[in-house]
Amino acid sequence: MEELENIKLGEDGCSLVIIDQTKLPGKLDYIEIKDRETLFEAIRKLRVRGAPAIGIAAAYGYYLCAREDMNEEDFYRRMDDAERYLASSRPTAVNLFWALARMRQALKQNALKPREEIVECLRREAIAIHEEDIAANRSISEFGLSLLKDGDTVLTHCNAGPLATSRYGTALGPVLLAKEKGMNISVFADETRPLMQGARLTAFELMNAGVDTTLICDNMAGEVMKEGRVNAVMIGCDRAARNGDAANKIGSSSLAVLAKHYGVPFYMLMPLSTVDMDTPNGKSIRIEERDPDEVTELWFSERIAPEGVKVYNPAFDVVDNELITAIITEVGVLRPPFEESFTKAFEIKKNLGGR
Amino acid sequence: MEELENIKLGEDGCSLVIIDQTKLPGKLDYIEIKDRETLFEAIRKLRVRGAPAIGIAAAYGYYLCAREDMNEEDFYRRMDDAERYLASSRPTAVNLFWALARMRQALKQNALKPREEIVECLRREAIAIHEEDIAANRSISEFGLSLLKDGDTVLTHCNAGPLATSRYGTALGPVLLAKEKGMNISVFADETRPLMQGARLTAFELMNAGVDTTLICDNMAGEVMKEGRVNAVMIGCDRAARNGDAANKIGSSSLAVLAKHYGVPFYMLMPLSTVDMDTPNGKSIRIEERDPDEVTELWFSERIAPEGVKVYNPAFDVVDNELITAIITEVGVLRPPFEESFTKAFEIKKNLGGR
Repeated sequence: MEELENIKLGEDGCSLVIIDQTKLPGKLDYIEIKDRETLFEAIRKLRVRGAPAIGIAAAYGYYLCAREDMNEEDFYRRMDDAERYLASSRPTAVNLFWALARMRQALKQNALKPREEIVECLRREAIAIHEEDIAANRSISEFGLSLLKDGDTVLTHCNAGPLATSRYGTALGPVLLAKEKGMNISVFADETRPLMQGARLTAFELMNAGVDTTLICDNMAGEVMKEGRVNAVMIGCDRAARNGDAANKIGSSSLAVLAKHYGVPFYMLMPLSTVDMDTPNGKSIRIEERDPDEVTELWFSERIAPEGVKVYNPAFDVVDNELITAIITEVGVLRPPFEESFTKAFEIKKNLGGR
Repeated sequence: MEELENIKLGEDGCSLVIIDQTKLPGKLDYIEIKDRETLFEAIRKLRVRGAPAIGIAAAYGYYLCAREDMNEEDFYRRMDDAERYLASSRPTAVNLFWALARMRQALKQNALKPREEIVECLRREAIAIHEEDIAANRSISEFGLSLLKDGDTVLTHCNAGPLATSRYGTALGPVLLAKEKGMNISVFADETRPLMQGARLTAFELMNAGVDTTLICDNMAGEVMKEGRVNAVMIGCDRAARNGDAANKIGSSSLAVLAKHYGVPFYMLMPLSTVDMDTPNGKSIRIEERDPDEVTELWFSERIAPEGVKVYNPAFDVVDNELITAIITEVGVLRPPFEESFTKAFEIKKNLGGR
């Protein structure tokens, strides 16, 4: 498998290099990002996407802003502005706010140091966020794989692979790890309308890794479950609330209802950075509503719907906690009631030295 | 509303004129069909589609074959060949076989007459099938509307409007009839991947009629139900088995599961010609599997999935009878157990002089 680095610091340390995910699988294009406006646009337009990946990109972005503004008089105010600006790029994935809060915290803790040192601390903090995500994904993959056996078939939705995170991914982690270990897990990949992350990114990543992958339209997921061809549903998450209600790509909640109806275990895989204990339940999660053109124009090419038709285009929905069999994090497989298991998980993480 | 005639005999009586539904909503193209091969291709490629419309087109096609072969030695054998050929164009919608069987019956009943008369009888039989469908749709629309109230919102999937039938349509009939009566029923139209009949045809037909229509991706249907914005799901049907299991466009079965979960009534609307008492249950319905390109290429334009990806592309699924609130036919609203209510419905139909 060709290892792709979806996000990395440029060699000179003053730019961020990302894969433009809107061009995949047709073209593997890297973009060099040097300013906050380009990063904002890249997040907004889904050139970089996936909750953990957005967090990582924002952390590097915050560092780049600090580097740029290092010699400015009003450095701290400017950093607050930078944080607010980057935080406004997308509303649902909590990792964005979590990563920016961590960066702000690192800034505060080093506020009395010379500017160069502060900036260096921020560089190290961004790298730490990135590396911790890699480690978390590896653990998530191990815990997730413990729920599967050789020959199983997993159904997934949207893309929660390496491109959406750092390495392995969350939902695709167990499958990719299985492949490394010589096990075979097959995958049904929902294409994931409107923006086709499943067809474009998940199928691409899995085939790259030699995983047996079958692409289906979103409305076929219930049928393959009904036919008894799915052993588990595994998807990522954009934000889990304290009670375990969990937002993810539109269609996730319906998959959970279908999985329950057909007796298929339903797993959501996420680092603890995706769990937002300040959000009490799913109703409090802000769901991004996106441009109607995403629906009326097929991947921004040909128009397929009549001019003037109204469109409802929520980017996410919320899976009710009672429909989730387990939430797989870097510290283990969490079972309901989730508020309790989240609390324990954060304690374990703290004892292990994580944040 | 501009009244579109999706299927009609050409003025000279020796051709069939259909709207090429693959070109909508961009272009309103009529195709003149003079031979069985062109009709076969038109059905296969969904230029004419929708269970009742396929039946009507096949009936006219059978008549055209008779007209063409009128003076042939082996007329009856050739008509058997024509029937088999047309019947092999698509496997799931029973109206195709039902209409061809009616045409064969008409041929048999008039077998001793001069050829010209036989052909004339077949012309009249095809027109009868067409006109009966119009009448059935009108009744279905009335019965369906009796289940709604002014201001309601209906969710529909695929296209079961006038284009898929003759006039009014089945699933869209109640909404279009409501509009005529000055009532307002709003519609959520599932776009219906892979071939986008919802975005292209349902949105087009409803907007043409001035109906308040909101287009959603298939994976958003659960969300609008969860938000309490749907009063009823109304869809068409390609074949109902004796026990009430009912095949319709892929995704229908999942909608039924979601509707049950969210407490939304789930209605399937169909003429009795769609009910196949010879098929005991859903397992016996042959489900057409279609070309992978329909999934990997967006409406046959740009490729979106990696080359070589496997695809599963069933065109239909089967809604289990226990998930169906009622089946609406031209003789009334049928409730479970469906085998019993179908039997009664066919009796009523027979007493009314129908076939």
